[in-house]
Amino acid sequence: MTISMRSIATVRSHFTNEVRVSRRDIVAEIVVREDLAAALTGLEEWSHLIILFWMDQIAGKPIPLTTHPRYRTDLPEVGVFSARGPERPNPIGLAVVELLKREKNILTVKALDAYDGTPVLDIKPYDAFDAVTELRAPQWWMTATGRLTP
Amino acid sequence: MTISMRSIATVRSHFTNEVRVSRRDIVAEIVVREDLAAALTGLEEWSHLIILFWMDQIAGKPIPLTTHPRYRTDLPEVGVFSARGPERPNPIGLAVVELLKREKNILTVKALDAYDGTPVLDIKPYDAFDAVTELRAPQWWMTATGRLTP
Repeated sequence: MTISMRSIATVRSHFTNEVRVSRRDIVAEIVVREDLAAALTGLEEWSHLIILFWMDQIAGKPIPLTTHPRYRTDLPEVGVFSARGPERPNPIGLAVVELLKREKNILTVKALDAYDGTPVLDIKPYDAFDAVTELRAPQWWMTATGRLTP
Repeated sequence: MTISMRSIATVRSHFTNEVRVSRRDIVAEIVVREDLAAALTGLEEWSHLIILFWMDQIAGKPIPLTTHPRYRTDLPEVGVFSARGPERPNPIGLAVVELLKREKNILTVKALDAYDGTPVLDIKPYDAFDAVTELRAPQWWMTATGRLTP
């Protein structure tokens, strides 16, 4: 089944594929299509959003089905659905961001790891039911991310 | 910009638009395309997943830009991006689910509020950075959901 969509916004950011920066330090703008501005009414009352975006630099390229987690070649390959890398059959990016400001159709957000110019597919408010606190992650993920707990 | 994708899996569920049930009580299967089975390697080591799906019963229909939160007509209308209803410009559904079991290309999950037959766009492991514990939600959302705290 083929599905088609149209982008609802575009990312404006200093983050590109040549910039190395911690995700949480990125402040970016999401410029929503002016014909959709009314769909943002009340958004500023939420503290966090989920942004779904289209990783257009990956789209259309052949992708592997398995990959080393976070490019760590010392770790065994896992399926692309088992990790969070950009190379996946439908390269949809998902970022949980903090909403700093809304001015009409322009949102200023923190921690959006999408490159400048990235098309945005959807904006959702982050609700309590999205928060899982008791979770289990694989040991190889802990190793790849350098964390001690999930 | 027009974006096209192909579904990577299909939902198999007793949940339809004629069934009223609490989201957390739904146990469903996600049947992944057999040509993508290798992309699931290692997935069973995660406890929770984020499922992105295509709400095909909404797709292609005209949608409003504002709506009453959770169909509560006693509450003022808000933008569709400010709430979690299915009617949105790109009707992508997002569910945080618990992974109960994987058997080859079939996942059994809990709390997937997608109807039987729904096309799935992406499967991502739920990682600690997806969990926000200090969040603010609007008062009208608290009223609509009957919750006292976000």
